[in-house]
Order: sequence, then C-alpha cells, then structure tokens
Amino acid sequence: MICPDRPGLVSELAGWVAANGGNICHADHHTDAGAGLFLSRLEWEQQGFGLPREAIEPAVSALAERLGGEAQLHFSDALPRVAIFASKQSHCLLDLLWRSRSGELPMQVALVVANHPDLEPLCQEFGVAFACVPVTAATKPESEARMLELLESNGIELAVLAKYMQVLSANFLSRFPTVINIHHSFLPAFKGAQPYHRAWQRGVKLIGATAHYVTENLDDGPIIEQTTVHVSHRDEVEDLIRKGRDTERLALARAVHLHLHRQVMVYRGRTAVFA
Amino acid sequence: MICPDRPGLVSELAGWVAANGGNICHADHHTDAGAGLFLSRLEWEQQGFGLPREAIEPAVSALAERLGGEAQLHFSDALPRVAIFASKQSHCLLDLLWRSRSGELPMQVALVVANHPDLEPLCQEFGVAFACVPVTAATKPESEARMLELLESNGIELAVLAKYMQVLSANFLSRFPTVINIHHSFLPAFKGAQPYHRAWQRGVKLIGATAHYVTENLDDGPIIEQTTVHVSHRDEVEDLIRKGRDTERLALARAVHLHLHRQVMVYRGRTAVFA
Amino acid sequence: MICPDRPGLVSELAGWVAANGGNICHADHHTDAGAGLFLSRLEWEQQGFGLPREAIEPAVSALAERLGGEAQLHFSDALPRVAIFASKQSHCLLDLLWRSRSGELPMQVALVVANHPDLEPLCQEFGVAFACVPVTAATKPESEARMLELLESNGIELAVLAKYMQVLSANFLSRFPTVINIHHSFLPAFKGAQPYHRAWQRGVKLIGATAHYVTENLDDGPIIEQTTVHVSHRDEVEDLIRKGRDTERLALARAVHLHLHRQVMVYRGRTAVFA
Amino acid sequence: MICPDRPGLVSELAGWVAANGGNICHADHHTDAGAGLFLSRLEWEQQGFGLPREAIEPAVSALAERLGGEAQLHFSDALPRVAIFASKQSHCLLDLLWRSRSGELPMQVALVVANHPDLEPLCQEFGVAFACVPVTAATKPESEARMLELLESNGIELAVLAKYMQVLSANFLSRFPTVINIHHSFLPAFKGAQPYHRAWQRGVKLIGATAHYVTENLDDGPIIEQTTVHVSHRDEVEDLIRKGRDTERLALARAVHLHLHRQVMVYRGRTAVFA
Repeated sequence: MICPDRPGLVSELAGWVAANGGNICHADHHTDAGAGLFLSRLEWEQQGFGLPREAIEPAVSALAERLGGEAQLHFSDALPRVAIFASKQSHCLLDLLWRSRSGELPMQVALVVANHPDLEPLCQEFGVAFACVPVTAATKPESEARMLELLESNGIELAVLAKYMQVLSANFLSRFPTVINIHHSFLPAFKGAQPYHRAWQRGVKLIGATAHYVTENLDDGPIIEQTTVHVSHRDEVEDLIRKGRDTERLALARAVHLHLHRQVMVYRGRTAVFA
Repeated sequence: MICPDRPGLVSELAGWVAANGGNICHADHHTDAGAGLFLSRLEWEQQGFGLPREAIEPAVSALAERLGGEAQLHFSDALPRVAIFASKQSHCLLDLLWRSRSGELPMQVALVVANHPDLEPLCQEFGVAFACVPVTAATKPESEARMLELLESNGIELAVLAKYMQVLSANFLSRFPTVINIHHSFLPAFKGAQPYHRAWQRGVKLIGATAHYVTENLDDGPIIEQTTVHVSHRDEVEDLIRKGRDTERLALARAVHLHLHRQVMVYRGRTAVFA
Repeated sequence: MICPDRPGLVSELAGWVAANGGNICHADHHTDAGAGLFLSRLEWEQQGFGLPREAIEPAVSALAERLGGEAQLHFSDALPRVAIFASKQSHCLLDLLWRSRSGELPMQVALVVANHPDLEPLCQEFGVAFACVPVTAATKPESEARMLELLESNGIELAVLAKYMQVLSANFLSRFPTVINIHHSFLPAFKGAQPYHRAWQRGVKLIGATAHYVTENLDDGPIIEQTTVHVSHRDEVEDLIRKGRDTERLALARAVHLHLHRQVMVYRGRTAVFA
Repeated sequence: MICPDRPGLVSELAGWVAANGGNICHADHHTDAGAGLFLSRLEWEQQGFGLPREAIEPAVSALAERLGGEAQLHFSDALPRVAIFASKQSHCLLDLLWRSRSGELPMQVALVVANHPDLEPLCQEFGVAFACVPVTAATKPESEARMLELLESNGIELAVLAKYMQVLSANFLSRFPTVINIHHSFLPAFKGAQPYHRAWQRGVKLIGATAHYVTENLDDGPIIEQTTVHVSHRDEVEDLIRKGRDTERLALARAVHLHLHRQVMVYRGRTAVFA
C-alpha cells in the first residue's frame, strides 16, 4: 500500500487485517516525509483469515481507494511465471535457472528469450523453453512485437534481463512494464556501453553491479540492489569482467529474490526495499 | 514492547497510539516464532499526542501488563547521561567524544572512568570529567564499588567500555546492567585476551570487531554490531592492531548509535536491531 | 621458492631468470621475519627462455637446493586434473563445473566423487565422470581406499571438497595431501558441525565461509580465502543457509582460482597469497 | 622506478641493491603491458648498505637515467611535513591529527589552512599552527598566492584536502602538485557539488568516498582508494552525510597512509598501489 501520509494509517491497516481475523507475520512501514507518502507492507497468514481468497483483492482495493492510494495483493504460495532475456553470456542465466530449480527463487521460468542461439543447450539441460529472437536496428519493431507475443502467450508476469545487452524501447515497456535489468557498473557511474573498459580506463579501485527496474531512460530506473568488488592495478579489463560476473549475478539474484518476495516498492523513481 | 505473540498485536499497539491522537513516524515489528515472542518498536510524534508527557509511561506499562509483556518508553529529545570506561588506548574514546560533541550521538558524556591516568588530557580537551580508578586483583571489589558510586552520583544510564580491557564482575553487572563493550574480534572467534595475536597466528584473512552488551560470561553477551576488514600475509600483528582500530571504533560507534536511538531490543541472549 | 632469508635473494632469483633469457612478467616476494623465511613467486614467459621445457625443473631444483629451500615449477598452459568431492548439495559443485567449462578456472574436472547419488545427473549434463562412493563409519577405510584408487587412476593433482561433509582421515591425507575444503563459517568460529545453526543461536550479525587446505586437524588447515555476509534478526537458520551458499561458493571459487594460478604458498600452517 | 619495460629489469634493479650490500625487505613490481611500462618499488635496509645516505639519490638517478625512466628515493625514517586544508567540517581533520599524534601516520602536520576560522580551537588542542585564508571568487588569486607562500615557508611536501570544499586552480597545482583530496562519492559517480543530495535523489543503495590526487580537472585525478557503505530508503540526506563521514575519513586516512609509505605510483592518470 502506498498512500498519502496522515496519522492513524498503521492502526487502520493493521486493524483491517485484525478485524478479518488475520495474523500479521511481517509488517513494514515507511514514511517519506518529503513526498508526503506512507508505504506499508503487511504479510499475514491465510489460515484463519475471514475473507475467501478471491474476495481479498477487491477488499484491499476498496481500502486503497478509501485511503486515496494504491495497493497490490500477492499470495506467497503463487509461483509467478518469469521470462529471462539473455544474449550470449551464461553466468546470470545459469544462476537464475539454478536458483529457480533449487527452490531458492519462488518462480517458474516459463521462457528464455535470447537474440543469439548460444544458450539454447543450457536451457535444454534445465528443461526450459528457449526462443531465439534476433534483433537488428532494422528489425527491432518486429522483434519486440514477437517478444511481446511470447510474453503474453506464456502468461509472463516478470521479465529479467540477464545480460541481455539490448535496449528495450519505450513502446515495449509501455506494454510490458515489469522488467528487472542487471547493469555492470555501480550506477550512476558508467551508464551505457562497456562499463568495465571505462572503469579500467578511469583507474577505479572498485567495480560494481546494479540491479534496477527498467524505464525508458537507459540505466536510469529505480535501483533495487548494488554490489561492489575491489580491483587493483594488477587487474586487466578481462579481470574486471571476470570479477564483475560474480558481483553481477549476486546483485541480480538478490534483486529478483526481493521482487518475488514483494519486498520492493517503487515510487517516484526510487525504491523502498523492506529487507 | 516484547510480549507473547498472538494475532492482532500490531493493530492493538498502533490502535492505542492512534486512539491517543499520535502520529506514528516509525514502526517496526518482529515475530520470533521459535520463541513465541512479538517485538515491536513504535516511534510517534509528541506533538498532538493526547497524553501529557508524564502520563505516557504509566499508560504504556499498563498496556504491557495487559499483553503480558514488557515495554520501555524513551523520549528522543532526552540526552542520556553516559560514562565511558577506557584504559590507555585513545581511539575509541576520542571517537565517541567527538561524535558526542558534534551531535552525531545524542548523549551527554558525563564521565570517563579509566584504570590508568593516560587519557586525562584528552578528556580535559573535551571538557569531560575524568576519574582514574586503578584496578588490581586485590583491589577489584573496592574499585568496582567506587565505580558504582561514580555511576550513581553522576546519574549514568549507560556505560560504554571503549577498550577498557578489564572484566566487570557479576556483582557489578547486577547493580549496573546496561553496559556496551567492544571486543576486538568477530565473536565467537578469539574470545578473551590478545585476539589479534591469535588471529595472526591462525592466519585468518579477515579480522573483525564485535560490539555487544556485557553479561557475566566473558565476550558472550548479545551482539549488536560486527564489522570486519581484510588482512593479508603482509600484515604483521601490529598491522592487524592498526587496521583493527578502525573497525573497532566503527562497530562501537554504530552500536552506541543504535542503542541511543532505541533500535536494539535484547531478548533471550540475542538482539533484534531495527535499523 | 621458499628458503631461509638472507640478503641478495631477489637479485639471485631474478638474475637466474635473466641469465637464461627469461622475461619476468610477475614477481612477488615476501619475507617472514619471525620465521626467517623468504618466499618468492616468479612468473616469466616461456618464449625466448634459454632452457628447454623439460630442463627447467631440474635447474630450479638445483637452485632451490643451493639456497637450502624448496621450489615448485608450474606451467601456466597446463590444465591440472581435478577431482571434486561432493555430497548432496549442488551449489558449489555446479559453480565449479560452470567456471571450468567457461574457461574461468584453468583446470580439467576429471572426476566427481560423492557419497550420495543425487548429483549424478548434474555431472552428466556437464559430461563429467561421477563416482558414488558411500561412506559409513564401518566402511570408511575401504571407501577411502577406493577414492585413492580413483584419484590415482585418473591422474588427479588436486581434490576440491565442495560441501563434501565428510572428514578425510589422516591416512588419506598422507597419501593425497593437496585438498581444498570450504567450511561454512568464518573460521576459527564455529568449527565442526552445523555452523549456521550455531551462528543463529549465538546471534551473530555476520556469517562467513572459509576456504582452506585440509590437514588432519578438522577445520584447522591453512586459510586461503574468507568471505562474509551480513545477517539480521529477521534471518532464520534457513536464511543463513541460503545466504551462506553464495558466500561459500565465492570463497571456494576464489581459493581454487588462486591455487590454480599458483598464487598461494603454504608454510608453517599459514598461507601467503600473492594476489 | 618507472621505466620502459624490457627483459631483465627485476634482476637489474635487485642486482644493483645487492651489489651495494643492501638487504631488500619488500619488493613489488608491475608491468603495464598496454603502456609498455615497468614499475618497481624496492625497500631495503639502510644498515649495512654500501653507499652513504647522501650518495644514494644521485646513484638512483643515474640508474633511472640509464633505464630511460624516473625514480624517487625516500627514507622511511623521514617525517614529511604535511599541510592539511580544511573548511568547517572537523571529522577528516581530527582523524588525521589524531593518527599523526598517535604515530599511525608517519608525518608531521606543520600547518592547517582553512577558509573559515571554525577549526582553529581543534588545531590548538593538537598544538598545530592554523592559518585562516578566506577565499572568494574575487580574492582567489591572492588567497592562493598566500597559501603557496605558507606551503613554501613551512617546507611542506604534501597537502591533504580534508573536506576543503574549494577548487584549487591549475596555476596553484602547477606550483604545488602533490595534493590528495577526499571526494564524497564513489567517483566517477557524482562528480562536483552535493554528491550526497544527488545520491539520495538517484536512490542508490550504496554511497562511497574517493581519495585521489588532485589534477586540474575537477574530481578526475588518479584514484588511490575508494570505500563504500550501504544505505537504504530509510536514510535521509542527513543520514547519508553522517554515514558518509565515516567512509570519507577511512578512505582519506588509508590513502595518506599509502602515500606516506610510498606505496602509490602515479602514471598515465592512474595509480599502482603496492599494498
């Protein structure tokens, strides 16, 4: 729930759950005084809750409307259908597939989309459907249309760009907005192409990775997680790339974990992460 | 508030604040399912609150009693009177004195107690009273009695052991229980004397510091904060000591900051840190 | 090269390489004054070197003998044959297999040994031989004899315990001494069984992993790499286990990387890591 | 020593020390293949060295000339005279003064220069000369001229900008080039003014500090050390500033430590840090 701040909101929300017989197991709130907003994440047990499952969403919506805010309802036993976008590099993709298979990430990887065929064998090993959709400057509109079809026909709720290396258009994002990307720098440093080369050039002593929601402005979306690793003058560009792979996949996996557990709220270009 | 867990507690506590006209600015809760306990930290604005300041504590106590739990009430505009215990090393003491003077730590350092006279000039620079209370095995009971007198006559609420290097007796702690210590290892590794020497001997690749509440079992109290720093084979014991000083004072300052902002709750030998 | 310290050693070693027409690309030295030892790691290009490949080792040995020390010679284009020991958990094994396949780790995984059959399919995906050697208290001697046969017949040079969860006997280690283990705590804290459970019990604020060479004293061998990750009161034991997996595989992969690049020297129960 | 790379350099340099009877206690080398440069840091004992103290520098210069490179000679028992530039904030200044007084930093703080009078009492406590040199856009040339006089008359070798908050002109730097600055962001992110405000605005999950040598391009000089600290949505700008103070003073102190131990070599806009 995100709504305008005023006294009594914690009580009102918790009271609503209690009035319906719910037992809250996690409750997090945040007030952004500058923005005048109140954010609340409530997690309660289904067992013993007075409303039938299908009646909860309308009730929550009514509550949100009354408070002049917006709310989302998620069930923790749901397994969201996720598409992973990749290119040629396997480290982030493999990491997500393994975390999904092992049950660490509560999601169902329904589809992998890539603009190159290289990662198909890996997907086969994990029994995940693979769609190769090449992208060139000329074919980008058709390619994106094909991807949107795939997302829709597969009932995808979240797309994760696991080193996809392509920019999604504003049109694409307007039709499928829930996209997490991993960028291989500690943003806002080294936006755009070849961040490791530029980091080496600049002589930084630490490199990083940033997992963020995608918006139409490149590498400018709300940040979910950032990680860094130390480098030294002994590290060449390829060492930065190697060390970066580890920090990339950690940042991405943590961000997806937080998203899937609905611990991230986005507002005004930033996130509140209830970890 | 710490009380036995049951449904409706978030609502009940927040409702109590709201019923008295209070506006909650921070609310944190935690359920320890194994222990069957519910922990809640509520921070609300005094302005507009329906109860006069002196009536809040009795009301909170009554609420706690009704829930079968225990509660503490603190006012964020209070400046707790703190005593710092030191020995010969100045880094933690100076750090705390500076953070107090700069207003970063909301406390009033009313007294420094040391078993050696070395740090008196530093205390004079900061205008803080200094009491030298030497301790030997033979005089320990009298020395501790003298310290307890000093704590009482100065109205001290919290004692911080800033590299005090002496063990406080169970008798002392039973009479003055709120004591934070900094131990120069990542506990439970290297309990007791000379942790840096033993860390060097063991060839560890990281050293640490642990800020914890003091209990009668040496280095075994509830942990508030831990920090680490990397070391290499090039570091001699004196390098470990040097690098350790930085991580010690950071861990201690953070722990005192958390304590003073009442973000730490202790239960069953552990802490919940609402950061 | 590890030898007794005396003036002129850097010059003598570098001079020997230069006299044979070698171009040093990396040179690292360390003097342990307390132990009276000098350690040197020299890396030079084969191209243009005056000695034929097979003559270098005898020449290096003669040099070491003259200095009263010990030396090892390795060729960076060699792909050491490695065996990975595992049990039921896949995260470290998969990580090493992937890093090997991608070329990040310069090794050839010739064999996976496990005391349970669970990980055979994963090994098949990677085309790696899998041997299931169950171990019980009664059969341990025969099981270890079987493993030693496997190591010998496969020409294994390094064994990596990737969450093997079994203790290798002193007899095994005397016959196959080069073994790297990952222990799921920041040693020397939480040696032995169930470190995450004990870390939770103790209420630590960070957990860690330690990669070390195996010796007959459990969890007491020379440490190569240690990593940590922060935890909070919100983390249950299973969260510690989950967060720990990431820090375990990072510590292990870095240690194996350092070992394979011959950046680790062991002496007197500790390591010098020329990173 | 920095000189063009060619085979035999380690041997040549170490051989020169050995030929003069010197015992090398630390030797570090680095080859930047792309730049075609060889960097070497040799540290040897004065005791027993064949050349008298005053004859070493000319000999080293001759050696450098022969190799077509540049060399610096420093004596580890020298206490360089250092000026600290500050403004109103005390945390970095106090930290450096304390580390100097305690002997952790081998330097002599001969002078503190500030554009505001606020920090004079702190300098008096530490017995350090304080010069207030106000700077306005109009008076900047005269102010810098005054500062250069102060640096010269006090025999200053290194200037440390401890949150000085003023930009030194290219003219100043051409006359006094050895200046270390602390910038309160992980460069190249948030160059220039108000990095914490902009970091908060961007919603980053970690903030940092960068210690670097000053060049005429603002915040663009060779980086010596970078540190970071995690922040969350709960942190307001003032919390970033507070957390930042700790990471700033750590980065600056480490950089000054490395510089004073002559572990930093600058070349082509970057540093090699032999730590």
